[in-house]
Amino acid sequence: MEQIYSTPIELRFSDLDLYGHVNSVAYFSFLETARVKMFENLFRELTGKNIFLLVARAECDYKTAILFGDALVVSISVPRIGTASFDLDYLLHDGTGKNYANARTTMVCFDNVNKSTIAVPQCIRDMQEKPT
Amino acid sequence: MEQIYSTPIELRFSDLDLYGHVNSVAYFSFLETARVKMFENLFRELTGKNIFLLVARAECDYKTAILFGDALVVSISVPRIGTASFDLDYLLHDGTGKNYANARTTMVCFDNVNKSTIAVPQCIRDMQEKPT
Amino acid sequence: MEQIYSTPIELRFSDLDLYGHVNSVAYFSFLETARVKMFENLFRELTGKNIFLLVARAECDYKTAILFGDALVVSISVPRIGTASFDLDYLLHDGTGKNYANARTTMVCFDNVNKSTIAVPQCIRDMQEKPT
Amino acid sequence: MEQIYSTPIELRFSDLDLYGHVNSVAYFSFLETARVKMFENLFRELTGKNIFLLVARAECDYKTAILFGDALVVSISVPRIGTASFDLDYLLHDGTGKNYANARTTMVCFDNVNKSTIAVPQCIRDMQEKPT
Repeated sequence: MEQIYSTPIELRFSDLDLYGHVNSVAYFSFLETARVKMFENLFRELTGKNIFLLVARAECDYKTAILFGDALVVSISVPRIGTASFDLDYLLHDGTGKNYANARTTMVCFDNVNKSTIAVPQCIRDMQEKPT
Repeated sequence: MEQIYSTPIELRFSDLDLYGHVNSVAYFSFLETARVKMFENLFRELTGKNIFLLVARAECDYKTAILFGDALVVSISVPRIGTASFDLDYLLHDGTGKNYANARTTMVCFDNVNKSTIAVPQCIRDMQEKPT
Repeated sequence: MEQIYSTPIELRFSDLDLYGHVNSVAYFSFLETARVKMFENLFRELTGKNIFLLVARAECDYKTAILFGDALVVSISVPRIGTASFDLDYLLHDGTGKNYANARTTMVCFDNVNKSTIAVPQCIRDMQEKPT
Repeated sequence: MEQIYSTPIELRFSDLDLYGHVNSVAYFSFLETARVKMFENLFRELTGKNIFLLVARAECDYKTAILFGDALVVSISVPRIGTASFDLDYLLHDGTGKNYANARTTMVCFDNVNKSTIAVPQCIRDMQEKPT
């Protein structure tokens, strides 16, 4: 699957839990931060139209513990764009081949003026053809 | 599926995001808090033996937005206990029939002395037969 | 100093840091949660007028570590109400005489329509005379 | 006051609150992250001796709202090193002259073997003379 976006994520001390590992909840915060950065670059037009991207489903498979001081990169691909929703796949890795986790979110588009979900707009459909 | 544990979770202002909804990441923090409370009651013996319960996989389906001031209850059931792992199902609801989300985590047991995963111990197997 | 509001705060697993203590940053989240709960009860009228309460200064003296499973209560008093700002004092304790921390925030009122700070409104001035 | 350490801090979507500003609590997380990074570089020897650096007091004056997408740099200076504690001053800024906040933490050194506070060790006293 072709990755359309990659960003390093800087760990914070507060990401660590009692065991000295990055807490499993924090991974979802990393997905969110990477996703918002990706959409900030590509889709400023969407938010200008009051269209929100909401998470309908999120999942993560944990492979290897992340420790403080580790490098973390989140790379995103787009495995599916349907009529009403689309999926984002995330690879959490160290940038040099070590895989920390695989994750996926299913996103829906929400029109915050009419307060209803809408069809996936064209600028998102274009993601699969025009990788950045 | 029979619920073996239920706990209210108090929302915090910092759970809210830009849209005024409880952020999708925070749901996983609610799962964790409920799970740790459940295990604190049932399995103090495990932690005394340096056996950690780690999340191998987590997933959540979001149904209805949670707003600040909403009541939140997390109810846990145990749909599967395998040899090397077990699943916990979580219902996030308001205590009176409104369903916010459904979630599942797959847990593995980790021996922190020998630094390896171990078979699911009997005290966890007993969960399905002896609900609290 | 007379306390005008008290609320229990439920700890979360994610409040703990590497040392097994509630992290020093989380204390400020407890102040915020207690403050928002207090203002939710007393001053719904303010937010209806688009007046925000912003933190201009925050400070905390840490006395005793909070551990997971500890009871935590935040009690608020109002030591000063000036023209342009007011102070809130917070006692973090276990409800039975054990003091975890003392904290203070200086609050300013912000008119989100005119985008400027405003004089402390009367309904806040009334706090000192009419404790809940 | 001479700054002995500076680091950029990357904002996360979850740092934002309901008002679209970086939440006041998150600032303390930025202080912590900058401090831990500074001590990671300078004082690995301390943690090897089971000496923890604990926050005895924290304070922050908020000057200007931080928005998502803003550059954030935390710069640290050491205004005081006493016998039993020392202070760190933090400037939160954008790297080009815009000041978001000023903060200070008072730190104590804790011997986790003997479970007591200890005098500030020499390697910390050397901070004022040997800036990195």
